[in-house]
Amino acid sequence: MGPLIALTTDFGTGSVYVAEMKGVLLASLPDARIVDVTHEIPPQSIRHAEVVLRRAAGAFPLDTVHVVVVDPGVGTARRPIALQHRRLTFVGPDNGVLGAWLPGAEVVTLTRTDIMRSQPSPTFHGRDIFAPIAAELAAGIPLAAMGPRIVDAIPSTLPSPRQEPPWWVGETLVADRFGNLTTNLHASLLPPTWKAWVSGQAVPRVKTYGEAPTNVLVALVGSDGYLELAVNRGSAEAHFGAASGLRVVCGEGLSDD
Amino acid sequence: MGPLIALTTDFGTGSVYVAEMKGVLLASLPDARIVDVTHEIPPQSIRHAEVVLRRAAGAFPLDTVHVVVVDPGVGTARRPIALQHRRLTFVGPDNGVLGAWLPGAEVVTLTRTDIMRSQPSPTFHGRDIFAPIAAELAAGIPLAAMGPRIVDAIPSTLPSPRQEPPWWVGETLVADRFGNLTTNLHASLLPPTWKAWVSGQAVPRVKTYGEAPTNVLVALVGSDGYLELAVNRGSAEAHFGAASGLRVVCGEGLSDD
Amino acid sequence: MGPLIALTTDFGTGSVYVAEMKGVLLASLPDARIVDVTHEIPPQSIRHAEVVLRRAAGAFPLDTVHVVVVDPGVGTARRPIALQHRRLTFVGPDNGVLGAWLPGAEVVTLTRTDIMRSQPSPTFHGRDIFAPIAAELAAGIPLAAMGPRIVDAIPSTLPSPRQEPPWWVGETLVADRFGNLTTNLHASLLPPTWKAWVSGQAVPRVKTYGEAPTNVLVALVGSDGYLELAVNRGSAEAHFGAASGLRVVCGEGLSDD
Repeated sequence: MGPLIALTTDFGTGSVYVAEMKGVLLASLPDARIVDVTHEIPPQSIRHAEVVLRRAAGAFPLDTVHVVVVDPGVGTARRPIALQHRRLTFVGPDNGVLGAWLPGAEVVTLTRTDIMRSQPSPTFHGRDIFAPIAAELAAGIPLAAMGPRIVDAIPSTLPSPRQEPPWWVGETLVADRFGNLTTNLHASLLPPTWKAWVSGQAVPRVKTYGEAPTNVLVALVGSDGYLELAVNRGSAEAHFGAASGLRVVCGEGLSDD
Repeated sequence: MGPLIALTTDFGTGSVYVAEMKGVLLASLPDARIVDVTHEIPPQSIRHAEVVLRRAAGAFPLDTVHVVVVDPGVGTARRPIALQHRRLTFVGPDNGVLGAWLPGAEVVTLTRTDIMRSQPSPTFHGRDIFAPIAAELAAGIPLAAMGPRIVDAIPSTLPSPRQEPPWWVGETLVADRFGNLTTNLHASLLPPTWKAWVSGQAVPRVKTYGEAPTNVLVALVGSDGYLELAVNRGSAEAHFGAASGLRVVCGEGLSDD
Repeated sequence: MGPLIALTTDFGTGSVYVAEMKGVLLASLPDARIVDVTHEIPPQSIRHAEVVLRRAAGAFPLDTVHVVVVDPGVGTARRPIALQHRRLTFVGPDNGVLGAWLPGAEVVTLTRTDIMRSQPSPTFHGRDIFAPIAAELAAGIPLAAMGPRIVDAIPSTLPSPRQEPPWWVGETLVADRFGNLTTNLHASLLPPTWKAWVSGQAVPRVKTYGEAPTNVLVALVGSDGYLELAVNRGSAEAHFGAASGLRVVCGEGLSDD
């Protein structure tokens, strides 16, 4: 079996840009097995891509090469980079989208113009730089061969939760198709009897969607381990009229309100 | 070549949930060949998923393992099941979505917690229960090894057409992207000279879209063998302002109105 | 590794029609490697499909078989065809969608009913004619075995740019997800110092999106080599309220307005 290459972009599902990247990957590495993570990152939303990668990269087999193209600064001075974090490999722009994987990783800036397409388009590094480099990395060429090591790659753009004893204060990050809202509050931060408040209102806690009354906002531990807001048979996103940036306070569930 | 695993969900194309399922399948069965049937089932629409599977499962090669995740009751008492119907295998929730394949099938409820992810998320059985079980089934583990046999799985939720001599009475089920409306009236039920009425209006019969005048509602035998309503270069869905539940009466085409 | 089969349709991503075609291809050629170019061609837009294929087909490895189903005349007298242009193979309807590849190509009309599904549905030649023929071509059966050669296939429907010295006059063709507008003016037609005017207004020229001020309309050479209109962090499509048919005039950039 050929190596796995996973794609995460904001090009839109079925975009011809995705098809071109796949064509380049297959032309360069004929036995590559290409898997779409998603191409539905909202246009140019680095933060959304980070949340998706946080979930997806851990689910894929080791030695998968992830190509990530959410790249509002394509063609400007922002660097193209690749990094290896244990046995996960990522290729993409140096704009924070790979920031979560930097601590402990080996990071290089991509300088191998002999591997890239000659005269790369200044508007499509996904096809002309990231895909050819990813194909070589997937084929087993070492990271260090792709360019000089750097230590100043741009860190994650995701907001960190803050501890304001006795509370943890976080925020919602993205919505899924059902209107469930992910946050930056991991369950491991919270006491087992945690309770959540949003805009000063206590939010009932459940274990699964179906356990909640219909059309009632609830809080639960989502399938990625982070606190999630949901409405059974409804949409928490519609409930708030927003997906990101809602302040969520968590702490000991001592009282009912 | 590795075994085929086909995915049908309501997660949305490009959802990270789909990517996570693919990651789990590939980590568990590296040579699996994963094919998307669709992830665009309307959220939680068991009926729509049934119509899609009715078409798609027959087109795939024998020995394909179908994983179906349209699962509003995830995490509640509804059982996870798997079934084999001749050489077709299905894995999913026991909520009717697999109902069309029950007659004559061997059905088990899934109890192999050693195969599932330890501590499955109560909101994501697709990743934590269905995908790992499907990988084992695709690898050739027999169905009977996955749990005890059951005989009371929930049947199909699709409405049956009714015979009201000399008529057959059915209804529209779903629309496709072009606004064509599928029904539950299979051509094999109808006399060769069938004619269709909707809301008391006779609908002209054609063999193919292009044969109809533009913007006129027509009836035809769709590519799945069921009666279909269409508007050439238009949309039957827009014509009626609805996709499902429209009553369709069929019978001998003796008169013109 | 099995042969590559690339799919371009207007069925919609995740449409059951796409899944059925994949099932037929895999049942017929088990080691086929199927890649989606796109299923998001606007319904029945032959011109849009042409623009997509213009980009995508060149990026794929040689010997890829492209199946193209944008087919408003399905089931009528329009012919099903296949063609080979050097080592690229295309299968689809004879309605112009394959027109760009006709010059110099060998073209046949498909008559091998023994390969097609018996009694093909008059509404779904993608599944019943194009997919089975494509599987045989991908398996190595020669084009000439699929039917008699024809020389009158329908040419490209894309408008050609016109030379009105000292100008080249073209038009916008399609928008991508970011609102960037592709045109039919290839950079190789233009003088190195070209400048563009739209509706009599000079459009500043840049090399890449990020170089432009935000919310200003700019012109650049797109990643397919054609002149493109864009708005950095905005949408040229929204700027004009249209994607196709906007007249674009290009010539020597002698003056600033």
